[in-house]
Amino acid sequence: MKFGFEVLHRDMGTGARLGVLHTPHGDVPTPVFMPVGTAGAVKAMSHESLEALDARIILANTYHLYLRPGHERIEKLGGLHNFMSWDRAILTDSGGYQVFSHRELRSITEEGVHFRSHIDGSKSFFSPEKVVEIQRSLGSDIVMVLDDCTPYPAGRADAEASMELSMRWARRCREQWAGQDDGTKALFGIVQGSVYPDLRKRSAEALGDLDFSGMAIGGLSVGEPKDLMYEVVESTVPLLSWEKPRYLMGVGTPADLVRSVAMGIDMFDCVLPTRNARNGYLFTSQGRVLIKNAMYAEDQRPLDPDCSCRTCRRYSRAYLRHLFLSGEHLYAVYSTLHNLTFYLDMMRKIRDAIRLDSLGNWLGLMEKGGDSSPRDL
Amino acid sequence: MKFGFEVLHRDMGTGARLGVLHTPHGDVPTPVFMPVGTAGAVKAMSHESLEALDARIILANTYHLYLRPGHERIEKLGGLHNFMSWDRAILTDSGGYQVFSHRELRSITEEGVHFRSHIDGSKSFFSPEKVVEIQRSLGSDIVMVLDDCTPYPAGRADAEASMELSMRWARRCREQWAGQDDGTKALFGIVQGSVYPDLRKRSAEALGDLDFSGMAIGGLSVGEPKDLMYEVVESTVPLLSWEKPRYLMGVGTPADLVRSVAMGIDMFDCVLPTRNARNGYLFTSQGRVLIKNAMYAEDQRPLDPDCSCRTCRRYSRAYLRHLFLSGEHLYAVYSTLHNLTFYLDMMRKIRDAIRLDSLGNWLGLMEKGGDSSPRDL
Repeated sequence: MKFGFEVLHRDMGTGARLGVLHTPHGDVPTPVFMPVGTAGAVKAMSHESLEALDARIILANTYHLYLRPGHERIEKLGGLHNFMSWDRAILTDSGGYQVFSHRELRSITEEGVHFRSHIDGSKSFFSPEKVVEIQRSLGSDIVMVLDDCTPYPAGRADAEASMELSMRWARRCREQWAGQDDGTKALFGIVQGSVYPDLRKRSAEALGDLDFSGMAIGGLSVGEPKDLMYEVVESTVPLLSWEKPRYLMGVGTPADLVRSVAMGIDMFDCVLPTRNARNGYLFTSQGRVLIKNAMYAEDQRPLDPDCSCRTCRRYSRAYLRHLFLSGEHLYAVYSTLHNLTFYLDMMRKIRDAIRLDSLGNWLGLMEKGGDSSPRDL
Repeated sequence: MKFGFEVLHRDMGTGARLGVLHTPHGDVPTPVFMPVGTAGAVKAMSHESLEALDARIILANTYHLYLRPGHERIEKLGGLHNFMSWDRAILTDSGGYQVFSHRELRSITEEGVHFRSHIDGSKSFFSPEKVVEIQRSLGSDIVMVLDDCTPYPAGRADAEASMELSMRWARRCREQWAGQDDGTKALFGIVQGSVYPDLRKRSAEALGDLDFSGMAIGGLSVGEPKDLMYEVVESTVPLLSWEKPRYLMGVGTPADLVRSVAMGIDMFDCVLPTRNARNGYLFTSQGRVLIKNAMYAEDQRPLDPDCSCRTCRRYSRAYLRHLFLSGEHLYAVYSTLHNLTFYLDMMRKIRDAIRLDSLGNWLGLMEKGGDSSPRDL
């Protein structure tokens, strides 16, 4: 079974595409949102619940798994799918983002990045070749190149140097990959260049020459204004091949997903639905619910009357608020189930809208404020 | 539907009874282990999982619910069953044990007990009448009297004074109950008297006169040697009516349950399976598993090959250990599911053994060490 991507339909009124990723662990309809399973587990979400929600792909973090339990141990135990007992698709990031997030703990050279474990302070080193090798050990279906995630704001010279480094690393990843590629799995490149259109263009061109199986847009959702993010996405997408899947990393809110899909993005990941759930921030068809708010103390309604998740079918806002304030484990379980249901249901609705050539109407409603769903989310 | 208890069969070789509790929220086969749902939720165990495990009754803590969200709020929201969306039976303790556990925060008078909230330090007062009223507000199927849980060790004079106080409080609870009792729910008395057989006898007699719907043995599993606990249970059970359910509070290990059932106990509650699960202590048919142990790091076997729970059907010891060490929410979910399955499956086996008049054989195997199951647990 070869890795592949097909565009099945293009929305008439927008740049959105309906597609499917073919992976060794099943097909994934796109546009898709990938729940984040940092350490080989989506926080507070059982595999059974993910399957019931028809999640076809999750993201796992190379950095975390490398440190604990270790990629060599996971390989010995049959790879990540076997280790975590998940037989659907897995995308792993390169670990770069986590390493770069701990600024005081790392130093970057041409060769790669030296860093200290956030767990025990031990020293490690990631090179482009090594992160490809680690992800191969894990058995990821989709492998990401090591990149230098340019922080925001970055001056032009810094952004250029950072992008150029990422491009040299991407080439090294591609070469490492060539030695092990049997066509069943995918290596994705990552466009960098901060908020500078010409740098993004040069980055996309450099990656285009390397013929990756998919293309990601990195270095966004790192603190820049929302309008600027959309500008970059809008100007970068046309630089990417029509035939390949396009992945906007680390984005975003429900409204971000609708808008980015309309610009031609196919794949997303973000900790927002899961992390927000645990922090008491719940997404509903009627807007956000901050569950700790006293107004919910005696509210017997379901969290979202339009949601069919087990949480909404059974529990009241009053009970969820009580579980949250009491620090009960179940709060995380029920709230995560709801927020992920909201996200994955929304992606289903997005795919339906593309199929009907009506995503543009959805966008129009959003702009007029006539559609409550992602408005204030 | 009247509250009731029937003894269906007595084990030929031991004092064990097979029975059934009739409650307004369904029948409960006995002997029964009641999972502890302190704040209106069994920690890390969804209601759906409890139902799938055929848990017919859970215990909730009056003290915790009184402080948060408050019994008046729960009553306003339709009672605890409605509030937490659980339509099976609920037993609530009187709150006494929690209050007495926080020794520096409380003072006891003839009238009742003054205490401070462990949450915010606010002052409260529990009288026997008030705890009955609180539990009525909650809508508990089985209500416990307020008692003074005598600590261990206690000198004879202290134990006697404490027991006498508990008996005066039991009478006041009984009188309060008489004013609201419609026969659908149950009020249980609690035998105290520490490790002194004559005090236990006087306590049982005092309670016998008050005609409770069931009788509990309190003040055990509070630090006394195990043999002494068994002595007290063995000498106290014959003092209790054959017709009424007998509840050994706060006990215990798997071996404790088998032995106590053989002495004639019908009901148990304990945080052991749930708390131990979260702390990495897992019960299996082959003995305990301390999941953090390095020996499990690459152990691909299920936690317990003889267990049919979702955890054992799907996940390896290596993965569970990884989730534990990573502090993942899911560890608590999967481990609690397993430990409670172990306990509830054991209770089913105990009931089967009584039905077959063979609980004595099980005890014999335990004593010879020929039955690994509860031996070292």
